[in-house]
Amino acid sequence: MRDTYHDELDAISSNLVEMTNQVGSAMSRATTALLDADLALAEKVIADDESVDARYRDVEARAFDLLARQQPVASDLRVLVTSLRMVADLERMGDNAVHIAKIARRRYPASAVPPKLRSTILEMGHAAEEIVAKAGSVIAGRDVVMAAELEKDDDVMDELHRQLFRSILDDTWSDGLEPAIDLTLAGRHYERFADHAVSVARRVVYLVTGERVPAIP
Amino acid sequence: MRDTYHDELDAISSNLVEMTNQVGSAMSRATTALLDADLALAEKVIADDESVDARYRDVEARAFDLLARQQPVASDLRVLVTSLRMVADLERMGDNAVHIAKIARRRYPASAVPPKLRSTILEMGHAAEEIVAKAGSVIAGRDVVMAAELEKDDDVMDELHRQLFRSILDDTWSDGLEPAIDLTLAGRHYERFADHAVSVARRVVYLVTGERVPAIP
Repeated sequence: MRDTYHDELDAISSNLVEMTNQVGSAMSRATTALLDADLALAEKVIADDESVDARYRDVEARAFDLLARQQPVASDLRVLVTSLRMVADLERMGDNAVHIAKIARRRYPASAVPPKLRSTILEMGHAAEEIVAKAGSVIAGRDVVMAAELEKDDDVMDELHRQLFRSILDDTWSDGLEPAIDLTLAGRHYERFADHAVSVARRVVYLVTGERVPAIP
Repeated sequence: MRDTYHDELDAISSNLVEMTNQVGSAMSRATTALLDADLALAEKVIADDESVDARYRDVEARAFDLLARQQPVASDLRVLVTSLRMVADLERMGDNAVHIAKIARRRYPASAVPPKLRSTILEMGHAAEEIVAKAGSVIAGRDVVMAAELEKDDDVMDELHRQLFRSILDDTWSDGLEPAIDLTLAGRHYERFADHAVSVARRVVYLVTGERVPAIP
């Protein structure tokens, strides 16, 4: 019975790792859709979020079922409760990608990104992808060292976010209000995406070390 | 033993209700700080969030302790897991209020709100306060009828949010880029605050009726 139980715990963990792949891919496509004003790709990101949500519900149901049937204690209980938290973070990351895709769709056939900010948005997209890929590795390998790396990547994201704001608020901004607002919102979604990934990594650190980590502000 | 257990469950529920009061008060003050460019009030909202976070940690610890010690099944288990979800929503609502207070602080001594948008922001603040007050009643009384009312209030919030956007993007906007961006971000925080409150109410509905409600998009 305990073996089936641990198989089920492993299945939950695999699902969480798979979700990091799904939302990483969604963010990658959303960034491309935003930069290239690619309507079809934006629509795909929006439609595909249903499968992220389905996995979210599946992990929830599995975790709940294990809690109810197996009455786990101590570290197994902690793993399950933590999984419920992580799956919520990952689901929100999918939503962040959808929001960016929706900005691309709203501005189509124009691109929401003025030429001078292409590289900043591209870097934010890459940072987001790298952070979520690391979050996947952190979950899969309970890798506390990589969790620390991920925190540094998040600092890079925060700096890119500040840089984006500075550009928008610079006196030389000549692209008008609508792109300024779109990029403000897009910037916020990149930054939140990374914050949720940090939150996932910190929960794994907590599982491994028992050391409580502060909430993301 | 079971009595102590149910006392503990009640304590968690009371803490959640108290958190709705805390974050409602924070949002009320943040709105005033934003409208009146009141720096001291903004600072207070930012500093007071520590007590929301402390309560969050306390509820988490209590729920976790009960899960571990009492091994609840069926409906008690559902209440505990749901409480862990609700407390996370409430903590995020506190953060939304803090973000609005930070916008007020950033623009001080100017007000971030141009005169023509004062009433819209005021209405968004009031809608937020009413929604979270109802969320408190929904938790306290397991009140499914009020949960439905709250959904309607959220529609009002969404309409105010759209109205804010329309004003900012209107050709007659003459307040410049920085207020446009501040209000875009503030608008998003009001809207998210309400969404989290809806999420709290839906979780109570789920507890009462067993009927699964969709995630907030």
